[in-house]
Amino acid sequence: MTLPAVNALVFDVFGTVVDWRSGVIRDGERLNEAKGLDVDWAAFADAWREEYQPSLARVRQGERPWRNLDALHRESLEQLLERFGVDNLSDEEIEHLNRVWHRLDPWPDSIPGLNRLRTDYLIAPLSNGHMRLLTNMAKRAGIPWDLILSAELSGHYKPDEEAYLTAVDYLDLQPAEVMMVAAHERDLEASREVGLRTAYVHRPLEWGPERADDTERPAESAYDVVAEDLVDLAEQLGSEPIL
Amino acid sequence: MTLPAVNALVFDVFGTVVDWRSGVIRDGERLNEAKGLDVDWAAFADAWREEYQPSLARVRQGERPWRNLDALHRESLEQLLERFGVDNLSDEEIEHLNRVWHRLDPWPDSIPGLNRLRTDYLIAPLSNGHMRLLTNMAKRAGIPWDLILSAELSGHYKPDEEAYLTAVDYLDLQPAEVMMVAAHERDLEASREVGLRTAYVHRPLEWGPERADDTERPAESAYDVVAEDLVDLAEQLGSEPIL
Repeated sequence: MTLPAVNALVFDVFGTVVDWRSGVIRDGERLNEAKGLDVDWAAFADAWREEYQPSLARVRQGERPWRNLDALHRESLEQLLERFGVDNLSDEEIEHLNRVWHRLDPWPDSIPGLNRLRTDYLIAPLSNGHMRLLTNMAKRAGIPWDLILSAELSGHYKPDEEAYLTAVDYLDLQPAEVMMVAAHERDLEASREVGLRTAYVHRPLEWGPERADDTERPAESAYDVVAEDLVDLAEQLGSEPIL
Repeated sequence: MTLPAVNALVFDVFGTVVDWRSGVIRDGERLNEAKGLDVDWAAFADAWREEYQPSLARVRQGERPWRNLDALHRESLEQLLERFGVDNLSDEEIEHLNRVWHRLDPWPDSIPGLNRLRTDYLIAPLSNGHMRLLTNMAKRAGIPWDLILSAELSGHYKPDEEAYLTAVDYLDLQPAEVMMVAAHERDLEASREVGLRTAYVHRPLEWGPERADDTERPAESAYDVVAEDLVDLAEQLGSEPIL
């Protein structure tokens, strides 16, 4: 059986396309200055992100109804502010900090790689971030998506299969015509399970330089493509440089 | 009561942003040449578009389940090819013609107007065209949407209220923070009914120059804005020229 050609690439976003850790640290350090705080924002960022999977899991397991990432992030944020001893922020300041996830910057190769890939493929995020978050992020950072797709469209968080299959439906394609691109094996395994093609992107700096060596590169054979970054992905898929 | 500020503009597409009639005529005349046909494509375009509302109505009234516009257009197309005596097209040629609705060109003011508006507002289509059709159209013509929204996301065609309210939800806004922009009063009336703001855009050439005088301009008081085109809309909403 010959697989059909890939027509669209869908991307995990937090960690794969954007550097969430540096973004949280950047805005946090501004807050240290503005409010006379002494928070270790690298530790704060990691702790906030570590709350992410458990908080999605409660939705995925049906313990609670769908809530978007702003709501889930806000719950963890309030606990963390207490844990880190921050008690002098207004509600408006807390809300602004909560929306730092809308204001993350792409890795340096992300936009050059996406610009090459979009000449040959439809490109879209497929993130657990909600439609509005992904739209704000793309508009602020100039990420050249052809359309925004999100787990929100299915009411199920990744790696639930509905998240992938709903995106495939809106692309009006078969699963094998869509390639999921992610820096996380669990996301790729769930995609492959429902018939998508898979591309692993190595992001050793996702959890900061000190943990760079923790990220093992998977075997070449585990996914359709194993790439160093999004420019390397474009090269491996044969997308020409545009300059 | 003071209304909240408008944060996002959503646009009807066929007739409001793009000129469907000229697009169908353009591709049809190429087919006349390639296949030695003698079809009056202006008449064909009008007849095809006239099938549109009845075919949506059958879905809206629950006579049949949701089908996307490619499927509805294809049904009308096959009937019209017979009616216009065209019997020498391959299935591939018929399918290519059917997808002319993905290949329509914007009115000359559309992209300049949208580029101005997008500096101040989120902008998205909100069309009965499906996600893939609107994505292909935007990519081909360079329409600078911030995200693609479609009636398809609700499983209900406009003017069913679900189509508008689902879009408002994905924008994470209240209805009064969203303005519907359309050249068709029925679309605007249904939007207003569920709390959206409304902007009428005059498109006297939608049905061709001979019917330009049939389009009456509504009273200024009927909608929040009555505009001559999308550049005029940007001016009335105070969006600055970008050049």
